[in-house]
Amino acid sequence: MKIYADEQSGNCYKVKLLCGLLSIEHQWIHVDILAGDTAAQDFLTKNPNGKIPLLTLDDGRHLWESNAIINYLAHGSALLPSDPFLLAKVQQWQFFEQYSHEPYIAVARFIAKYLGLPEAKKVEYEAKQAGGHKALAVMESQLANTPFLVGDSITTADISLYGYTHVAHEGGFDLTGYPALQAWLLRIEALTNYVAMG
Amino acid sequence: MKIYADEQSGNCYKVKLLCGLLSIEHQWIHVDILAGDTAAQDFLTKNPNGKIPLLTLDDGRHLWESNAIINYLAHGSALLPSDPFLLAKVQQWQFFEQYSHEPYIAVARFIAKYLGLPEAKKVEYEAKQAGGHKALAVMESQLANTPFLVGDSITTADISLYGYTHVAHEGGFDLTGYPALQAWLLRIEALTNYVAMG
Ligand SMILES: N[C@@H](CCC(=O)N[C@@H](CS)C(=O)NCC(=O)O)C(=O)O
Ligand SMILES: N[C@@H](CCC(=O)N[C@@H](CS)C(=O)NCC(=O)O)C(=O)O
Repeated sequence: MKIYADEQSGNCYKVKLLCGLLSIEHQWIHVDILAGDTAAQDFLTKNPNGKIPLLTLDDGRHLWESNAIINYLAHGSALLPSDPFLLAKVQQWQFFEQYSHEPYIAVARFIAKYLGLPEAKKVEYEAKQAGGHKALAVMESQLANTPFLVGDSITTADISLYGYTHVAHEGGFDLTGYPALQAWLLRIEALTNYVAMG
Repeated sequence: MKIYADEQSGNCYKVKLLCGLLSIEHQWIHVDILAGDTAAQDFLTKNPNGKIPLLTLDDGRHLWESNAIINYLAHGSALLPSDPFLLAKVQQWQFFEQYSHEPYIAVARFIAKYLGLPEAKKVEYEAKQAGGHKALAVMESQLANTPFLVGDSITTADISLYGYTHVAHEGGFDLTGYPALQAWLLRIEALTNYVAMG
């Protein structure tokens, strides 16, 4: 099993953390987006959308999209409930992550951390703050009631949302106002086999 | 079972189409976003993210995010494969829809159809075209090889992507260059119990 990825990307880190927690052996292949790796013809035959992370199974089949990959790898484990409603709840949080969280928090972080918050990107950066805080508040409202997003135990939904939430401060998001969320971060970091980003 | 939704929204239409195809009885409750319905306190207790569609089960539990809702409703039906890899492929296309397709195609359509393409939104509208065409090309590359996105038969991934693709022309997207995609649209429209939008 090969994982094409970049350690600095939160979307890729989700896969790394999942593999750590479940002790899944894999070959990690570094992909350099800025060098054009994801736009190369060879890569596009694996993922026509030209993005990492990308999983390639030993039989040659490919799977892309971080959340689809971690759900596949967690299939049959304690990280993925088998009850249909709880399974849908996991997906609810993951779609929320891709639509209402990542486009604000990951993009603000990218502008600040990797581009160095240049003048030309200031307006976009500022525009991401409200949406990011809205997403954090939605998480806080759930985590004030349950220790993990879908209930009493960790699921892949927590891994998906941990990816960029734990580095949200790098995008200018102060987490002081989200005590339940902060406790949740610590709960994840205390797990056996937890692996840090980078 | 109650579905809070708006007929004109592609995200809500996915749920309507799924219920049609599987003959699932439900109560459709119209929600008026512009009148502030999704921002009302009562609605936010059901979905703290303030968005439709929203599903409320008879026992009072809530589920939001269009793709999570249709996967839940399709559980155990022919529209959702049980093989773990194929199930992950369904999700791959659905995360692609939320991240790389909807934010371009649905937003361009909203600006053109509902806002009437005002001068102040022209730049944003134009900026959505390249991303939308990229997403359509990714779909075309798959549909040139398989009749449906995940293989020989329709899954919820097709429903998710049909939602906004079949009205992409309302966002200025000419589908002439995507023959396999056009054939796929017709294949879906020919299904027994197909229901149209609106
Ligand atoms: N929805 C995708 C997003 C993946 C994504 O945006 N990957 C970035 C790195 S974090 C990438 O590959 N960008 C290269 C490009 O878009 O050209 C997922 O969750 O896997
Ligand atoms: N990712 C969500 C998106 C839902 C969404 O954006 N719904 C719109 C209508 S199409 C909405 O409720 N907007 C109201 C708002 O955001 O305030 C899904 O797939 O259900």
